[in-house]
Amino acid sequence: MDESFVALTFVDGALVLLDQRILPTTVAYVHCHTYEEVEFAIRDMVVRGAPAIGAAAAYGVYLALTQSSDEQTFFKALDFLANARPTAVNLAWAIERMRGVYEQHKKLAKEAQLAALLTEADEIRNEDIRTNKEMSQIGSRVVPQGATILTHCNTGALATAGWGTALGVIKQAHYEGKQIFVYADETRPRLQGARLTAWELVEAKIPSKLIADSTAATLIRDGKIDLVILGGDRVAANGDVANKLGTFALSVICKAYGVPFYSVVPVSTIDFSIPDGSHIPIEERDKSEVTHIGQTQVAPSEIDVYNPAFDVTPHQNITGIITERGIIYPPFGENIERLRNGETL
Amino acid sequence: MDESFVALTFVDGALVLLDQRILPTTVAYVHCHTYEEVEFAIRDMVVRGAPAIGAAAAYGVYLALTQSSDEQTFFKALDFLANARPTAVNLAWAIERMRGVYEQHKKLAKEAQLAALLTEADEIRNEDIRTNKEMSQIGSRVVPQGATILTHCNTGALATAGWGTALGVIKQAHYEGKQIFVYADETRPRLQGARLTAWELVEAKIPSKLIADSTAATLIRDGKIDLVILGGDRVAANGDVANKLGTFALSVICKAYGVPFYSVVPVSTIDFSIPDGSHIPIEERDKSEVTHIGQTQVAPSEIDVYNPAFDVTPHQNITGIITERGIIYPPFGENIERLRNGETL
Repeated sequence: MDESFVALTFVDGALVLLDQRILPTTVAYVHCHTYEEVEFAIRDMVVRGAPAIGAAAAYGVYLALTQSSDEQTFFKALDFLANARPTAVNLAWAIERMRGVYEQHKKLAKEAQLAALLTEADEIRNEDIRTNKEMSQIGSRVVPQGATILTHCNTGALATAGWGTALGVIKQAHYEGKQIFVYADETRPRLQGARLTAWELVEAKIPSKLIADSTAATLIRDGKIDLVILGGDRVAANGDVANKLGTFALSVICKAYGVPFYSVVPVSTIDFSIPDGSHIPIEERDKSEVTHIGQTQVAPSEIDVYNPAFDVTPHQNITGIITERGIIYPPFGENIERLRNGETL
Repeated sequence: MDESFVALTFVDGALVLLDQRILPTTVAYVHCHTYEEVEFAIRDMVVRGAPAIGAAAAYGVYLALTQSSDEQTFFKALDFLANARPTAVNLAWAIERMRGVYEQHKKLAKEAQLAALLTEADEIRNEDIRTNKEMSQIGSRVVPQGATILTHCNTGALATAGWGTALGVIKQAHYEGKQIFVYADETRPRLQGARLTAWELVEAKIPSKLIADSTAATLIRDGKIDLVILGGDRVAANGDVANKLGTFALSVICKAYGVPFYSVVPVSTIDFSIPDGSHIPIEERDKSEVTHIGQTQVAPSEIDVYNPAFDVTPHQNITGIITERGIIYPPFGENIERLRNGETL
């Protein structure tokens, strides 16, 4: 039931990442020995997916302490790491959690500090895998027998420390024998659906088809999709969800045609500090992501490009947000507040 | 005000086509000396766009007669041409119009038949350019001063015998000094927006940005788009429009957020014989269009793909259909019937 690959590990003093920029045609690993290399790996999307970014950053914090001779240098390195990508809240969440552990141990010898940070990074990674499995068990309950599911971007073992969020739910339903069928959006511009989700679906032997993002709308209208299950990069306190570009459009189509629409996120993806989605910073990325694919130029050099990496889906378009502590249903604000207060839904 | 290039001409017994498969990085021409070569050029999308397909097929009919020793062979060639691509009605429309001219001249010597057919093909091409300019004048009236316009796929000089339908309206508004700004969807999977529309926008010096298809939804919601203008491959008698994949999703978003949505088509794109869009055949194309871009493989070889080239937008989502004989507004069925009866709207 587990993957045939490990996308994120820490071995011999280096964060080892399966290079997601060149999958599925090439399987290769990047070794990060410094926090600067971790920052680059996050920014250049060697590793991507909100939970995976969090876990990678945690190891980056450990590496930063190995490299820092004083606290000021260490804190500067943390700020540098935190700015690698702006939208996913898990990056800041993991760094702050690591900073807290550092604060608890700062009076001790450096070796003890390092041991504590490495343990905490391992714990963040292991927790994420456990959390994903819990979410998958909970989420699979909303998947009917024989369901056809649409998903977007990659939310599998490659997007997390292991197993996956939305794709974790999908795998769980498959392994429970629910006879599901999956349509995977290719997810322009970075094609995480084509390159990564399709690869994970093939690995897991889940019956599925890859589609261009625009194909989803007609499938939804024509009753070919029973539910949409996808991830989330930051959830606001009112339930608005920032997720990969294309999520918002899907949510409007689903709402228009009455198709259930679920986001699957660990509680660490909820940013209790922001009231709604308008406060989530949306990363804009380089024009080359749209004008070039691999070595192939697909647009004239002179054209300007607008390339936001994420969009915000209003909570009104969302059926439920699946977490490891239960499914958040409307009223989202009220139920997210309950989660914040430590309740299980 | 005219293009710096000619995409479709007939020279020295050959249909000469600007090869749209390799634009914008390579400008090269394909010469079709036989109707089989014309059929392949249409099927493989050397030439694409409903009006351009019609004009190319007209020359294909002429070439078929030069190659045919008897009527049976000729008619078989016409059927072969007609099946090159199923969705755009202009292909069948042009072939039937050419067949009519053949029927009128079949008692004459072969030379006279050929002369009549070549004249008719030239006329179809020239009519299309005139029609486009008429539509552009009419369509520009719905474009406000300073408008930001979203368009999809390519509907310019490359999609027609010259000038363009939706992009013709956009160019007209630009040349009238309306200070417009254009967002062009890249239009997966064949990237006609990135490769062709962006190229035409740069050529025409129209301020514009290229976006991934999924970016449009947020722009529409956030009030950044004043109107959507795009083409059409077949219009049913009730005003349903089959157009490039992605059009339907845009129409749902526009309807949800109250943004005007126009299709621009010559009357030859209206199929009066079908009551609604459910009768329009939707072409499915090869999986390689989704799994490969140029030489770059972007999905695992083992994944299945569903790759429809078009979708159907219900007339309820359409503000108006702009033709060379006026703008069709609701009630679409009634007004399309008036067009059929020869009225001008």
